[in-house]
Amino acid sequence: MSAVEAFDAVDIIRAKRDGGPVAEDALRWMIDAFTRGYVSDAQMSSFAMAVLLNGMGRDEIRVMTAAMIASGERMSFAGLGKPTVDKHSTGGVGDKITLPLAPLVASFGVAVPQLSGRGLGHTGGTLDKLESIAGWRAALSNEELTAQLREVGAVICAAGSGLAPADKRLYALRDVTGTVEAIPLIASSIMSKKIAEGTSALVLDVKFGSGAFMRDVEKARELARTMVALGTDSGVATTALLTDMNTPLGRAIGNANEVRESVEVLAGGGPADVIELTIALAREMLALAGQPDADVEAALADGRAMDSWRAMIAAQGGDPDAALPTPRETHTVVASTSGVITRMDALPFGIAAWRLGAGRARAEDPVVHAAGIDLHVKPGDAVEEGSPLFTLSADDGARFERALAAVDGAWDIGGSVPANSPLVLERITA
Amino acid sequence: MSAVEAFDAVDIIRAKRDGGPVAEDALRWMIDAFTRGYVSDAQMSSFAMAVLLNGMGRDEIRVMTAAMIASGERMSFAGLGKPTVDKHSTGGVGDKITLPLAPLVASFGVAVPQLSGRGLGHTGGTLDKLESIAGWRAALSNEELTAQLREVGAVICAAGSGLAPADKRLYALRDVTGTVEAIPLIASSIMSKKIAEGTSALVLDVKFGSGAFMRDVEKARELARTMVALGTDSGVATTALLTDMNTPLGRAIGNANEVRESVEVLAGGGPADVIELTIALAREMLALAGQPDADVEAALADGRAMDSWRAMIAAQGGDPDAALPTPRETHTVVASTSGVITRMDALPFGIAAWRLGAGRARAEDPVVHAAGIDLHVKPGDAVEEGSPLFTLSADDGARFERALAAVDGAWDIGGSVPANSPLVLERITA
Repeated sequence: MSAVEAFDAVDIIRAKRDGGPVAEDALRWMIDAFTRGYVSDAQMSSFAMAVLLNGMGRDEIRVMTAAMIASGERMSFAGLGKPTVDKHSTGGVGDKITLPLAPLVASFGVAVPQLSGRGLGHTGGTLDKLESIAGWRAALSNEELTAQLREVGAVICAAGSGLAPADKRLYALRDVTGTVEAIPLIASSIMSKKIAEGTSALVLDVKFGSGAFMRDVEKARELARTMVALGTDSGVATTALLTDMNTPLGRAIGNANEVRESVEVLAGGGPADVIELTIALAREMLALAGQPDADVEAALADGRAMDSWRAMIAAQGGDPDAALPTPRETHTVVASTSGVITRMDALPFGIAAWRLGAGRARAEDPVVHAAGIDLHVKPGDAVEEGSPLFTLSADDGARFERALAAVDGAWDIGGSVPANSPLVLERITA
Repeated sequence: MSAVEAFDAVDIIRAKRDGGPVAEDALRWMIDAFTRGYVSDAQMSSFAMAVLLNGMGRDEIRVMTAAMIASGERMSFAGLGKPTVDKHSTGGVGDKITLPLAPLVASFGVAVPQLSGRGLGHTGGTLDKLESIAGWRAALSNEELTAQLREVGAVICAAGSGLAPADKRLYALRDVTGTVEAIPLIASSIMSKKIAEGTSALVLDVKFGSGAFMRDVEKARELARTMVALGTDSGVATTALLTDMNTPLGRAIGNANEVRESVEVLAGGGPADVIELTIALAREMLALAGQPDADVEAALADGRAMDSWRAMIAAQGGDPDAALPTPRETHTVVASTSGVITRMDALPFGIAAWRLGAGRARAEDPVVHAAGIDLHVKPGDAVEEGSPLFTLSADDGARFERALAAVDGAWDIGGSVPANSPLVLERITA
C-alpha cells in the first residue's frame, strides 16, 4: 500500500517532539496506520506524550479528529427534516442532566440523539441510570434510532462501536501510558464520536472542580475552547458552558435515585441546581436549533417535557410508571453539630457511591441500580445536631464501611452561610 | 512478587510528565519491571518521551543507570594489579583512534579493556575495522579478556550481551519511537555498559559537528557534562574531551584503510589530526591512571606503542604482518579548479563510505573490508585543477554512483586558507 509507505512514524513523532506542527497528510496517515496496526502502540504512546507536552494547533486537532472519524462509520440525520442537537457532559457526581434535558428539548420539535456511554470510576453513566427502569433497553439499531428521532424526538441510547474505532484503541493506550490528560487528545476523543454521530449542533457541559475530570478551571476552559473550535471547524455548531462540579449535582447520586430526581424535575419540581443547569443547557440547545426564545420553563411546568420523557422511555421498551428498584440496606449519617453546611465535596461522595455499588471498577462489572447516596442537605442549608445529612443505600450492608471512609471529612458544618459560587461560570462560543 | 506490585508505571510516567523527579525506588522498579516485561513497550516509550522533553536530574540519571547495570552481569578487573582505563567515542567519520590509542596507553603498563561494538549507519565500528586483519577475532571469553589484560595490557574485543541487557531493549525501543535524542537516556545507555564493564577510569571523546551523533556543540557539551557527572557519581573517574567532527578524521574512511592509517600512527607517522587526538586522549587516560607526565610521543616514536599493537593483534589470533585486503574497483575524483580546500563535510563522506560497503544498513549485514574512501587532501591543502581529491574503493563498481551522489557538494575549493578551528574544543572534568 503506497499510502502506508509514504510516511515514517519516527519522523512524525520527531516533528511533534520538536514542537513543530505535523503536516496534515502525515497526521492523517499516522491515525490511519495506527488503526491498521502499522504504527505500533509504542510509537503512538511516544507521540501522545509529545502531544501532551508540546500541544497541537487548531488545524492539527481538526485533521486528527477527522482521521479518527474516518476510521469508522459516519451517521447522518439530514433526512429527518428537523434540526438535531446533542449535549455532552465531561462527567460529574450526580450528573443526571441528560435525563430531563433530552425530552425537554425534544418537546420543542427538535431531534436529540444522545448516544451515551456507561460509567467507569466515580462518575456515573447515563445508560446505567436509565437501566434502572424495568424493560428499558440501551441498544438500538440505526433504523430504530432514526425512527425514534423522527417520531419521539428524544433518544438516549448506546453509542455503537462503529463510531471512531481509532479513538477506542487510542483511549485504551492513553489510559496506561499517562497520556489521558492531553487536551488535544481529550477534545479529539470526545468530538470525534459526536461529529461521527451526525448531529448538526452540540452543547458541551465542561465541568471543573473536585468531582470533574478537569479539576482546574483553567484546564477546563482550555478544553472547552478547544472543543468549541473543533466542532465549529468541523461544521457542527458548538457552544460550551463551563460549570462547577465541586459539589454533587442535585441530591441523588446513584442510578435509580437519579432517575427519580430527573422525573421530579420533569414534573416541575426537583433541586434548584438540577433545574438551573437543565434550563441553561436546554436554552443553548434550542438556540442552536433556531429557537432562541423558547419558553423552557413552561415546558417543564405544563407537562410537555414529561410527555416527551414518557414517550422516549416507552419507545425503548421501558415502563415509565414501573416502580424503581429500592435498596436492601440503608445507613443514614447525621450532623454531629448544629450550623450551616459550608462544603460538600463532590469527589468523595462520588467515590462513596461507586463503592456502594452504583459504579463499576472494570468495564465488564454490573452496577447495582438501587445503590447510591441521597443527600438530605446541600451547602447553605441549616442543620441541627442529630438531623440527617445523607443516606447511603446498598444491597449489602458490608459496603457501608468503605463508603463511609471515602466521605470522611468530605463536608463541613460552619457558623455562616457560604459565599454563593455560580453553577454556570462561563459561556464559550465560537 | 511484591517488588513488582509496589509501584504503578502510570504514576511514574505522570511524575516525569509533570516535570517532577521520579523517586529512586520507583525508577529502579521501572527499569527492572521493563526488563522483565511487566512494564510494556508503550509505557516505556511514553516515559522516554517525557524524559526527552522534561529531562532528568543528576540523581535520577545515576539511579536509572545503576538499575540498567543491575539488569545484567558486572565485571571486575580489581584482581589485575594494575590500573584500568577505557575510552569511549560517541562516533564519527574516520574515527579509528581506538586502534592506535589502546596499545599506546597499554605500553605504559596500564590495562585498557576496550569493549567495542560494530558500526551501524554512517559511523564505522571498531570491530569491523580490526576484522580486516587476517585471523583476528573479536569474541573473547571473560577469562581470555582478563588474561590478555594482564599479559598484553590492551584488548579491543566485542562487548558481551550480558552487560546491561535493559539498555539493549530500551535502545531498540527508542530507535523506533523518536526518543533516541534524550540526553539522560544517551548518557545512561553509554555509561551503563562502560561501568558494568568494570573499568576504574574512563575518557570520553564526545564529538560535535556534521559527522557526529550530536551535531550541535551545545548538546554535545551537555551530553559530555552529563556523562562525566554520571561516571563520577558511579565511582568511575571520568574525563571528557569535546572534539570537532565537521571534517573526517585522518585521510582514511573505511575498514582496512583505517587499520593501515592507524599502523602509520603507531610507526611514528600518520595524519596530524589523528596523531593529535590520539595523543590528547592518551594523556587523559594516563593521567587518570596516575601517570600525568607520561611521555606519550616517545612511545610512538621509539616503537613501544607498535610492539604493544603487535602483541594485542597476535593475542587475538591476528597476523600483524598480513597484507590487508585491497579493493577490486577504485574511482578517483579530481579537482575541477585550482585553489585551497576550504571544507570537507564529514557526514556526506561517511554516508558515501557506507554506501560503498564499508558500513551496514542492518545489524546482520556484513561489511566489505576493502571498501571506503581515501582522502588525498584535507582542508587547508592546496590543489591544482585535475589533481586527485579522494579515491573511492569498492568490490563492485556499481556502488560508485550512489556514493558520488552522497558527496555531491560536500567539499569547497576557495582562494584562501580556512580559519583553523581546534580539533579539541574543550576538556570537561568532574
